[in-house]
Amino acid sequence: MKPKTNSNHNTGSFDLAAYFSAKRRLIDNRLESILDDHSVPSRLYHAMHYSLMGSCKRIRPILCIAAAEAVGKGASETVMGVSCAIEMIHTYSLIHDDLPAIDDDDIRRGRPTCHVRFDEPTAILAGDALLTLAFEILSEPFRSFEDTDNARLLAIIAKIAKAAGNRGMIEGQMRDIFAQGVETDLESLKNIHDLKTGAMIDAAVVSGAIAGGGTGEQTNALSTYARSIGLAFQVADDILNVEGDPEIMGKSIGTDKLRQKATYPALIGLEQSKKYAAELVSTALQSLSIFDKKAMPLHAIAKYIIERKR
Amino acid sequence: MKPKTNSNHNTGSFDLAAYFSAKRRLIDNRLESILDDHSVPSRLYHAMHYSLMGSCKRIRPILCIAAAEAVGKGASETVMGVSCAIEMIHTYSLIHDDLPAIDDDDIRRGRPTCHVRFDEPTAILAGDALLTLAFEILSEPFRSFEDTDNARLLAIIAKIAKAAGNRGMIEGQMRDIFAQGVETDLESLKNIHDLKTGAMIDAAVVSGAIAGGGTGEQTNALSTYARSIGLAFQVADDILNVEGDPEIMGKSIGTDKLRQKATYPALIGLEQSKKYAAELVSTALQSLSIFDKKAMPLHAIAKYIIERKR
Repeated sequence: MKPKTNSNHNTGSFDLAAYFSAKRRLIDNRLESILDDHSVPSRLYHAMHYSLMGSCKRIRPILCIAAAEAVGKGASETVMGVSCAIEMIHTYSLIHDDLPAIDDDDIRRGRPTCHVRFDEPTAILAGDALLTLAFEILSEPFRSFEDTDNARLLAIIAKIAKAAGNRGMIEGQMRDIFAQGVETDLESLKNIHDLKTGAMIDAAVVSGAIAGGGTGEQTNALSTYARSIGLAFQVADDILNVEGDPEIMGKSIGTDKLRQKATYPALIGLEQSKKYAAELVSTALQSLSIFDKKAMPLHAIAKYIIERKR
Repeated sequence: MKPKTNSNHNTGSFDLAAYFSAKRRLIDNRLESILDDHSVPSRLYHAMHYSLMGSCKRIRPILCIAAAEAVGKGASETVMGVSCAIEMIHTYSLIHDDLPAIDDDDIRRGRPTCHVRFDEPTAILAGDALLTLAFEILSEPFRSFEDTDNARLLAIIAKIAKAAGNRGMIEGQMRDIFAQGVETDLESLKNIHDLKTGAMIDAAVVSGAIAGGGTGEQTNALSTYARSIGLAFQVADDILNVEGDPEIMGKSIGTDKLRQKATYPALIGLEQSKKYAAELVSTALQSLSIFDKKAMPLHAIAKYIIERKR
């Protein structure tokens, strides 16, 4: 199904599919050129490229760009660099999560995971390298970031590092791993997701807002938006793991149940989960009320999150 | 043996053991406070702390501080933060290298490796978290870096990220892994070591010089120093793996030969290896000729590298 939204007056006839497609092309091109400019040809490069350039939604970098557009004139060089760094960090986290010692997944983005296509040492190091390269990109004002001042760049690096680190995504992943097979309540589950997925979606949106020159008020409103859709995204992911189509999703379904993973459908049921996701999206949309029509893509993305099929 | 040097007029009666001990205390205290300030109490935190706070030489952060001292007035807040970030990156690389999928080492810094003490998922994620936290620390001008301008901070982040990444340490580790059991010539071996060890030692020294306010000429001279002692350090490590005392070293010896690893002793013999290390140290000492007595610690460290027993 094409992610098209026509039902809301705020988004009007906004064509999200076309928006996604245009931004994806921009992001893919920039990722390719970053890898080319920052690599030596090697097995490591091929593994990084393989994992980074699979068939991807690019939700996080698109959110980063859309946030920058909402507060500013559009996607600058800075914003493109930041959005690519965020996608690199997301990709590294997938590579490491898929490792035999962690989730032991064979399929990712519709094809063999990095350690299956290459090998385990290469996958560990390709993940490390993508994480490291992200910070290199973020610190290169003389290359991609001529239009943003250094203080903003440092604020973006701090925000992303904190969200990706041991008080954000990695702590969330730890709790997720050690919650498997253990009884988990709704509060703990929300907390896991807020750390594991929410923090980086927040960082994507907020760093886009900072790079785009947003005010404090705008950045705070966008952070509320991000936290809500981040949680909605995870609830929707849990739902897809129950009733998604593995062909469309490019990965196995039913794996959460098999692993006795704590999920929203397992804890509150499928219908309540869908209702909860819809409420979160509603909160996200309310937080966009201070913006003009430049926030239309953010509107459409919030709705897409609970309508998507993969 | 105490690393004391009395033979060179440049270092005079400089007491390197006391210098090391004083700097180690400063670094350990700062690392503890960084972890405290940037963590939630969790299994992840304990694994990070366990690996970071073992019995360590702290050569890289000490080199960073010594370089800053050579060009400036001493170790500032900035320099301390940078030196700790470098030690975090070094520690993460050890945790990942020790993993079963890579070197499969059980002992590190005199005690069980992270994945043995905790488990494999925790070790992977603790490594990821230390790498990420390093960049958070480097980007926090409002906390530790009040005394350095933002452009210098970004230059330091770029330098460290490049050295630690896929054109530096990680590429070196890849080549090292895939060179095992394969015939390797001296040129390839030098290249591996320059990437795997040299790049980060260079980054430690150069970022110390930048943080300390060094001129271009000073920074270049210190980079030559760093590249020479970096290679000497690796040659000396290979030698210690042949004839070191496992009790003193806190890790197994003879493991390189067992793994058919390409090493200097294996390629050019033990005596030639020692001669080569001495030549490299001599080059390093020459590059310090433009500095005054504030470079005495760097002199002493260069000599220590080939005299050390662990």
